[in-house]
Amino acid sequence: MPKRDNISMSVIRRLPRYHRFLSHLHEDGVTRISSTELSDKLGLTASQIRQDLNCFGGFGQQGYGYIVDQLCKEIGEILGLQNQYKAILVGAGNLGQAIASHMNFQADGFTLAGIFDSSPFKIGNRIGGIEILDVQELERFCEREKPVMAVLCVPREAVNEISERLYRLGIRSFWNFSHYDVAVQFPDVIVENVHLNDSLMTLCYQIKNKAQQAEKES
Amino acid sequence: MPKRDNISMSVIRRLPRYHRFLSHLHEDGVTRISSTELSDKLGLTASQIRQDLNCFGGFGQQGYGYIVDQLCKEIGEILGLQNQYKAILVGAGNLGQAIASHMNFQADGFTLAGIFDSSPFKIGNRIGGIEILDVQELERFCEREKPVMAVLCVPREAVNEISERLYRLGIRSFWNFSHYDVAVQFPDVIVENVHLNDSLMTLCYQIKNKAQQAEKES
Repeated sequence: MPKRDNISMSVIRRLPRYHRFLSHLHEDGVTRISSTELSDKLGLTASQIRQDLNCFGGFGQQGYGYIVDQLCKEIGEILGLQNQYKAILVGAGNLGQAIASHMNFQADGFTLAGIFDSSPFKIGNRIGGIEILDVQELERFCEREKPVMAVLCVPREAVNEISERLYRLGIRSFWNFSHYDVAVQFPDVIVENVHLNDSLMTLCYQIKNKAQQAEKES
Repeated sequence: MPKRDNISMSVIRRLPRYHRFLSHLHEDGVTRISSTELSDKLGLTASQIRQDLNCFGGFGQQGYGYIVDQLCKEIGEILGLQNQYKAILVGAGNLGQAIASHMNFQADGFTLAGIFDSSPFKIGNRIGGIEILDVQELERFCEREKPVMAVLCVPREAVNEISERLYRLGIRSFWNFSHYDVAVQFPDVIVENVHLNDSLMTLCYQIKNKAQQAEKES
């Protein structure tokens, strides 16, 4: 089955989950999985999974299931993880430091090439072997290294100026942890927002809503 | 206009964004905003915003716009931020520590009441005034303090056991940073997942896809 051209973001967003799940299975020594078992564990229907994978040409055989290792690799290739896009991180506060040290960028398709901050207390320190550079060095670094993605962990006051600078330096994709919608300012950039506060507030609403429902029913 | 009962999650997920944006306007001293201006800045249509707010009874006046402070407070109340639900955080590694120190839980509807880890190197340390307790204390603590939400920052190996323990202790809502779909195991819990790796992989796909499109067009 040929690969389709326009694949919806909701399909794309399920792929990392498949990949994560399959790589855990692989780590656990599982070599083959039936589509029913896979769907049970993922909390999706087997037909949903089949449909998703069919967007990319289809995998697995009827009645045989999926070969874990192979499917995992193929999904990784669809995601483009082999590209190892060069990335920088700006803002080495609590969150920036945690992201730099906690995340395995390589496993997710990126190489973290530089970390930047403006604080003299941070500049020169190392996180996971990478030196924190003065944000003043941004221009020189980007011209030399040509990163394509920037992780934004700067405070709200700084994000406007920083994202403009990064845009001028040719960066067109952002992993955005700052409280700011970069995409509104630059419509031609790719932005993946991680708004932790929004996520926490949404959880708050759901707790409140469940409590209200329970009250009504009692 | 009366409040509707079944409000879709996509509406709910936009509310924290409205709230965040309005509180920034309030901080910046803006007291009133027209619906056109609000929609421009949020990158949504005015009618979308009106529709969303109408789900909760409607706000603002035709031709007058919104009073920033008031709308912000009302959205906060819809989200239930005043409830200050008691929360604990389990797993004080890089990410857990960053979450505990970086996030303003109170602003998002929660009170962080306890932090737990199993490492003797971490137990007894403090993050933002809260002592890291031995995870062995979890049962005693929860029986006394009755938290309703747990932030899961534990490694994959530990999450199964920890989430089961927390479930037995009555916790029915999770802010989940671990690589594990808690909701699959316990269908009656509320889970807000933050899968940072999935987000990063999705960004990788989008970069790859944009490059492929550009190649085709050239």
